[in-house]
Parts: sequence; structure tokens; C-alpha cells
Amino acid sequence: MPGTILLNVSASFRLRFPRQARSPLPVKPTLLTIPTPQPHWASLQADIEAYLKQTIPIKDPLEVYEPMHRLVFAAPRTAAPALCLAACELVGGQRCQAMDAAAALLLNLANAHAHEEIGQGEGSNIALLTGDGIVPFGFELLARGAGPGSPERVMRVIIEISRAVGSGGLIDSLHMKKSVDGEVESVKRVVEKGEGGLHACGAACGAVLGGGSEEEIERLRKFGFHVGMMRGMAQRALNNEDVEEHRNLALKELHLFKDTDLGIISTFLNFY
Amino acid sequence: MPGTILLNVSASFRLRFPRQARSPLPVKPTLLTIPTPQPHWASLQADIEAYLKQTIPIKDPLEVYEPMHRLVFAAPRTAAPALCLAACELVGGQRCQAMDAAAALLLNLANAHAHEEIGQGEGSNIALLTGDGIVPFGFELLARGAGPGSPERVMRVIIEISRAVGSGGLIDSLHMKKSVDGEVESVKRVVEKGEGGLHACGAACGAVLGGGSEEEIERLRKFGFHVGMMRGMAQRALNNEDVEEHRNLALKELHLFKDTDLGIISTFLNFY
Repeated sequence: MPGTILLNVSASFRLRFPRQARSPLPVKPTLLTIPTPQPHWASLQADIEAYLKQTIPIKDPLEVYEPMHRLVFAAPRTAAPALCLAACELVGGQRCQAMDAAAALLLNLANAHAHEEIGQGEGSNIALLTGDGIVPFGFELLARGAGPGSPERVMRVIIEISRAVGSGGLIDSLHMKKSVDGEVESVKRVVEKGEGGLHACGAACGAVLGGGSEEEIERLRKFGFHVGMMRGMAQRALNNEDVEEHRNLALKELHLFKDTDLGIISTFLNFY
Repeated sequence: MPGTILLNVSASFRLRFPRQARSPLPVKPTLLTIPTPQPHWASLQADIEAYLKQTIPIKDPLEVYEPMHRLVFAAPRTAAPALCLAACELVGGQRCQAMDAAAALLLNLANAHAHEEIGQGEGSNIALLTGDGIVPFGFELLARGAGPGSPERVMRVIIEISRAVGSGGLIDSLHMKKSVDGEVESVKRVVEKGEGGLHACGAACGAVLGGGSEEEIERLRKFGFHVGMMRGMAQRALNNEDVEEHRNLALKELHLFKDTDLGIISTFLNFY
């Protein structure tokens, strides 16, 4: 299950996977003959969480910061923030260059989750306020982390994230979810604006921050979109054919990177 | 009442007020012999609202955008966004340079207001989601508006606004408000983190975007803080002496700008 196996694999352990142009199924762990941990996207997730643990201060007033920690780490995990790091590395960037963007995405998603629970009568007033606090904090991280020469990239990423999590993106998805009639087509639209858009955003932001070309950015955006669709639809136990179709479409977008190490990025196509 | 008289005064009408170094009370409108409207900070507020009306799209899905408009324009007005424009002009900038920052501040405050109502059991789920949508939109406006050469200033402003509205700022104030015991000192702390910090932020951001020097930025930040304290305390009908003290402290900070047109900025010290 994503989010439960949190391996912290150092870059030196990265394995070179055989290309999987025709088979969308990745090499199974049992085929590996060496006992090193497989570099899985969950290891990127673990990096982001470690960064956030260190970055969100535990200070006075504790009634503000303690729930902030709880809310951030209690939210269900999606692969979108980790995809941001993977895309950055795929275009030749360093993982750390995309860390603030990944953290900002995670914070925005944690807020959306907390507020969704409140909408369902489950959350508390504290969660309401706390959620409100972590969204600007995400943008602050991004702005703070902008090194000399990179503000244009950071600016672009702020716009990307705002659109993906705001109206036109995740907010539309959450609105639609309320009135969804169970029809496959309308569930698809919810997933498109939700998981699809969020993973597309994560991948595109990573590629921007890693210094990718416009073509690389757009390919990775599409890869992310299909990864999000695939994961979102599988989660809702939708038609397995649709899931497979998105997996294949995602794989196609990786063709541009065929001479690069596709180890981690291809694990986004697995459900283990 | 601030926010009700929305005069749209063009810059050419700006009046040069006699300096009021000793009397904190501004010249009363009755002393004016010409029938031109007094340039009041409410005119800046009107500019920000006109900008937001034009900027927030009315498009599908209407169930997202229509409440967004309603929420933004229904929130009670504070002077902090208008102060952002006034500070920008005071240091020699153009009003338009600070418009996105003023709009972002207003959007953040509208969200806080909507969520406060939800916390009190008055708001709807729609308001919850809508509030969540307008916060990233504010940051998007800021990032989008960063012209060539100005991203560093915009980055700084994003950090300033995030801190003022997030944990450590407004969020702390809203938390404290819940447990306030009616003691003047604890109400003061609520106002410090709330109105004080928000007006300080507005003024500092305006000065940054208008190209002010570090000294000008810090003076205007203090001016803003005292304006916020003064207005926040007056609103809570706190000790009038405290209100007057903050008004005088605010006035002192304007000394640096004594050779500049203090027309509009001095109207923040009035309650009409």
C-alpha cells in the first residue's frame, strides 16, 4: 500500500530497470537477485515527510503548531508530491530543488483533506484554522527557497500549484464530488480535476524546477495526469480497462526519457 | 464608516494637506473650500474591489465562481489592503504595482472571515470550499503579476503575506480569540497578531513593491502596525487612551516622509 512502506533509499542504491516499452507491468521484486531495497516512490514520500517534520516548527503557541503537525502527517497520502521529486530528478535536477514544491503540494492536499472532513461534519474548528495556516506556509516555503536565478521558475510553480489546488482544479473536483450521481463519466470528471490535475501539476512542477525543457515539462505533465487518473480510478474501483489504458498512456510519455534511469518514476505505475 | 463611502478619486485630484505634526486629527472635510471629493483610503479600497471584480472570472462551473464573488465582496473590510496601495504610492511607486498584493491580502482576509463564520456554525460547506479556493488564487495573482526584474520583490511579498495570515500571525490571533478572557492585555495580543500584523504587512508589502528603501519599508511597517492596533482596539471599544497612543505612534513614523504628499495615508488615522 502506498504510504505504508517508507523505505529511505539513498540515490546510490538506484537500480537500472530493464525498459518496459511493451509491458506496462514493472519488474517484480522477486526477479531481483540482490537484496537491496527497491527504489520506490514511497522513499520520496518519506523524504518529503522528513523535510516537513524538520521545517514545521514546534513552538509556542503549541495549540497552533501541534495540530499543524498532526494534520499534515495524518492526511492520506497521494503520489503527487513524490512525483514532483521524481520528475525533477528525471530531467537532471537534484531532489532538493523540488522539495519545497513537493512540500507545498502536500500541505495544500492536507488542508483539502482536513476541510473535507469538516464538510462532512467530522473535523474540528482547530482543524479548520490549522488547515488555513498550512496553505500560506506552503507558498512561503516556495518563496523562501527560491535561490538566486531561480525566481522565475518558482513563480511559475506557484501559479501551477495555485491552479491545481484552487478553483478550476481540486476545488472544482470537491464541488463535483458532492453532486456525483455514480455515473462513470461524472466520476471520471471528478478524478480528472482531482487526482489527474494534481499529479499532472506535481510532475510539471518538478520538471520546471529541475530545469527541464518545455517538451520534457509537457510530457511529464501528461505522464502525471495519466498516473493520477490511473490511481484515482483504481481507488474508486472503476473499470479496470480504463485504469490499464491510463497506465499505457502514461508509459508512452516516458519514451522521451528512454535513455534515462526510469527506476523510480516507473514505480508510480504500480499499486504496490 | 470605512468601506461604505467608496469614492473613486483620480490621482490628479489629490489634495495637499497641511502637515499635522502635533494634532493627530486630520483636517475636517468642512474646512475644504473646493467641492472636490477628499482622497480617502476608501477610494483605494474601491480600486481593489474593481480590480477583483474584473479578475475573478465568472465562468463554469457557476457553483464555484458565483460564491467566490459573493464571499470576496461580502467580507467585512479592513484597511490593510488599501494601506498596501497607499504605502506603495508614498515611496514613489505606482498604485498598480501593489494591486496584486492588496488583492491577495483581501482574498486571504475574506477566507479567514468565511472560515471564522463556519467555526461559529454559521457558514456553509460551499463557503468552506470557496474560501479554500481564493487563498491560492491570491498567490497566483501575485506570481502572475511579477514583471521582469521584480520577482525578488514579489517573492518577499509572498513571504510577508504568508506569515501575516498564517500561523504566527492571523491564525494565532483567531486561536487566541477563542480563549480570550476579556482581560485588556489578552485582547491586545489578539489585536497585535490580527489587525496589527495585517496592517503592518500591508504597508510593508506596498513599500517593498513601490521600491522603497529598507528604512522606508520598516517605518511603514511600524506605521501599519500602529494603524492596525488603533483600528482594532477602537473596534473592540477598548480604552480610548490606547487608541490615541497608537495614533500618535503611527503619526511619528510618517515623519520620514514629511516632504511627500501625506493626503491619503493620513486618512488611515481617521475613523470616518
